[in-house]
Amino acid sequence: MIRVSVVGAKGRMGGHVVEAVRGAADMELALALDAGDDLTLISPENTDVVVEFTVPSASLGNVLALVAQGVDVVVGTTGWTEERLEQVRQAIAAGPRPGGQKVFVAPNFAISAVLADHFAVQAAKYFESAEVIEMHHPDKVDAPSGTALHTARAIAAARRAAGMGPMPDATQTDGGSRGQVVDGVHVHAVRLRGLNAHEEVLLGNAGEQLVIRADSFDRGSFMPGVLLAVRRLAADAPAGLTVGLDSFLDL
Amino acid sequence: MIRVSVVGAKGRMGGHVVEAVRGAADMELALALDAGDDLTLISPENTDVVVEFTVPSASLGNVLALVAQGVDVVVGTTGWTEERLEQVRQAIAAGPRPGGQKVFVAPNFAISAVLADHFAVQAAKYFESAEVIEMHHPDKVDAPSGTALHTARAIAAARRAAGMGPMPDATQTDGGSRGQVVDGVHVHAVRLRGLNAHEEVLLGNAGEQLVIRADSFDRGSFMPGVLLAVRRLAADAPAGLTVGLDSFLDL
Amino acid sequence: MIRVSVVGAKGRMGGHVVEAVRGAADMELALALDAGDDLTLISPENTDVVVEFTVPSASLGNVLALVAQGVDVVVGTTGWTEERLEQVRQAIAAGPRPGGQKVFVAPNFAISAVLADHFAVQAAKYFESAEVIEMHHPDKVDAPSGTALHTARAIAAARRAAGMGPMPDATQTDGGSRGQVVDGVHVHAVRLRGLNAHEEVLLGNAGEQLVIRADSFDRGSFMPGVLLAVRRLAADAPAGLTVGLDSFLDL
Amino acid sequence: MIRVSVVGAKGRMGGHVVEAVRGAADMELALALDAGDDLTLISPENTDVVVEFTVPSASLGNVLALVAQGVDVVVGTTGWTEERLEQVRQAIAAGPRPGGQKVFVAPNFAISAVLADHFAVQAAKYFESAEVIEMHHPDKVDAPSGTALHTARAIAAARRAAGMGPMPDATQTDGGSRGQVVDGVHVHAVRLRGLNAHEEVLLGNAGEQLVIRADSFDRGSFMPGVLLAVRRLAADAPAGLTVGLDSFLDL
Repeated sequence: MIRVSVVGAKGRMGGHVVEAVRGAADMELALALDAGDDLTLISPENTDVVVEFTVPSASLGNVLALVAQGVDVVVGTTGWTEERLEQVRQAIAAGPRPGGQKVFVAPNFAISAVLADHFAVQAAKYFESAEVIEMHHPDKVDAPSGTALHTARAIAAARRAAGMGPMPDATQTDGGSRGQVVDGVHVHAVRLRGLNAHEEVLLGNAGEQLVIRADSFDRGSFMPGVLLAVRRLAADAPAGLTVGLDSFLDL
Repeated sequence: MIRVSVVGAKGRMGGHVVEAVRGAADMELALALDAGDDLTLISPENTDVVVEFTVPSASLGNVLALVAQGVDVVVGTTGWTEERLEQVRQAIAAGPRPGGQKVFVAPNFAISAVLADHFAVQAAKYFESAEVIEMHHPDKVDAPSGTALHTARAIAAARRAAGMGPMPDATQTDGGSRGQVVDGVHVHAVRLRGLNAHEEVLLGNAGEQLVIRADSFDRGSFMPGVLLAVRRLAADAPAGLTVGLDSFLDL
Repeated sequence: MIRVSVVGAKGRMGGHVVEAVRGAADMELALALDAGDDLTLISPENTDVVVEFTVPSASLGNVLALVAQGVDVVVGTTGWTEERLEQVRQAIAAGPRPGGQKVFVAPNFAISAVLADHFAVQAAKYFESAEVIEMHHPDKVDAPSGTALHTARAIAAARRAAGMGPMPDATQTDGGSRGQVVDGVHVHAVRLRGLNAHEEVLLGNAGEQLVIRADSFDRGSFMPGVLLAVRRLAADAPAGLTVGLDSFLDL
Repeated sequence: MIRVSVVGAKGRMGGHVVEAVRGAADMELALALDAGDDLTLISPENTDVVVEFTVPSASLGNVLALVAQGVDVVVGTTGWTEERLEQVRQAIAAGPRPGGQKVFVAPNFAISAVLADHFAVQAAKYFESAEVIEMHHPDKVDAPSGTALHTARAIAAARRAAGMGPMPDATQTDGGSRGQVVDGVHVHAVRLRGLNAHEEVLLGNAGEQLVIRADSFDRGSFMPGVLLAVRRLAADAPAGLTVGLDSFLDL
């Protein structure tokens, strides 16, 4: 049994994690802490893996403290920069188990979204055209989504690496309908009541199209990815900092 | 048998019409004319309905001449303005059969596209959100398509008539991904090698979505609509000028 | 303000109704009752419209009692047969307001599903081919869904009324992949973890396709339809029994 | 410049190949032969790669003869069995360039279809549920398509290899709508006028869905794959017989 503690257990995502851990046959819930609780209660004596799902302003401090206490951490909180990640790497190096501690950070735990991104990039060099459409609920404040930006940039990089030129586009007049151009890839953002988080990549050649679509219908969509990360940290994940769920998928 | 003459018979669309007329069990091909041919060969003696599919610069002149010769006309050429349509109305009033002659002009002969537009507008007032995505081959010079503009404006009008306010949209930062805003309706245009002409309308409420999509895979997609118009002119269409294929659909 | 009472308020659907009524600016919650509570508490003095969302075994009794008490009822419970509906009609005729009482029963309150069904049937006679694909969560015990059966039968009826023959299909060998044939219309049922309730109707002609798709992502998708029915009963709905949400949509 | 000869140049697919070779900047058309023409005209002196697109009854003989003449061959004709492939392997071993000759056979040259199949199989072990929907024109005589059968079997194999059990499915009553079960994977076949060849794989977990869709709109969709194979044979493809376009994609 993997002993899992949750930090941010009363938050929306953290609550889902508590429930998912309780429902997993190979895990047991150790501690469920939230803001104000004493993080030092968590130690290798009672916990194999911590899942940290709080807010960007609190997350770095939590992770550094947990690393100092010698436990492995799966981090679901967003807002990580390269600078912050570097602080985590240094904390691991200076920690109680310098060669062995594991921290995992992922911008997106939805397996379907991570696979869609990966497949779109793999396919990119075989198609003349590629565009990205992301669709979200209308309460989202940023457009396009970070995932769509990532997908577009990765498609652009794959095309450049394959020596491909710009995509065909004879458009002469447009009032903005062609969307945002990210490294040469057009990105479109739809905001629609009823949707949650969806991304579609369209790839086209003469006479054919490949469509790769990921639908995240609710927050529960992150849980299979969180549990997968917990299992990998408890088992064969390499020591040190790992970033991105694709690191844990056999692709 | 409906006797059909084709003007613009050597053009891409006209060639399809010739073939479609030959394949229709209830029609026979009378005359197939093209640029340089003598339009006065066409008369009520040899023709029931003319299908005119040429270029905007020639079409008005052709239609006025054909009306003066007393034949009914289905016009597939694009580029019609209200001013041009008014000239046709006057020609009908001054023609050899003032109370009886029929001319039909349609911006789009794809039945699926006309129905999609109609259904989207009917549904509009029942949904909080609505956006339009059109997808075309990359050789198209204008974006968005005229059909998408028409759909967006009609959705906006239906919402206004129902006393609905603006759609929910919390977007604060955007680099253009939200597309073109047409009367408050966001319109997105994709250009992809392999596609022909496609339009998708997304309508959303809390917990539900209605998607209406029309695919025109090739120019042949216009032929069922052209034949439908020919049959209606030869049968029970009202005298005078009729605009839009929806006039001939029982909706 | 429309005073709304809810019967079955502690059930999954009833709980959603209580919440939706509380969130509606033009409604106020009168009584929220559940199994064991005294239905006679509900009267025209405290309630304009009752929403009944219980179980098939209890629903007929509840509705007959509520009609006898003189209140109008929106019924969301399923399992209604023509025989049961007839009992409701007789109860209305024998009730305290014989010429004025209103009861509304609907097999499906999702506006998108009701519109999709309606549009598919309207479009059916303009297309050579039509097939239905429904997609649901894997815990559903019946296949295909009642909605898909209804759509298929209505498409078949529309084709017959238009004098259309069978759809083109050259299939000679098949191990069952062509699905269930309902009145000549092929119906396919997908069961997939992550989905809730979705239906897609594909209509095809040479060179073109029309796709009409309804997505119900969760139970909340029924609430706009329930509130619409409450408003119509409180306002201009005709007296007597009305069946089907399409009766309340301007189509 | 790669010198390309075409065998079956007057056939529907062969004609497309002739056109595609003429349009490729790095290729020139050597000989264009059809039934009745003398195959011995083709030799290493005038041809680098032959594209053979004829009929199953002629293809094996053509390929064996071309191998004996010492030229490399891309075979687009269908109907290959393991026994026939073995004859080609023996012909290569006994041919004029035993260690160096290259023959390529593929059941499907549509890059989008080959990628969709590959991605679906890669993703299969990460999802509880997976189903396959293929959609074709109604003149197709077999259902489901060979491609859909292949995809379903490969998904089933990937699930077995990952130790996964059967997919969740509570269906108790069904009149055939659940489709054909291929190694435990449900396969659905749609036949619709207007479509050509399309396949969609749906993969689902709690709260999320991954959809991978390949659209082949017309025969031109095979040409990018044919040209890719010609280039690989002229360049770095391994000697001997290679089967399947995925062998030439970096996946």
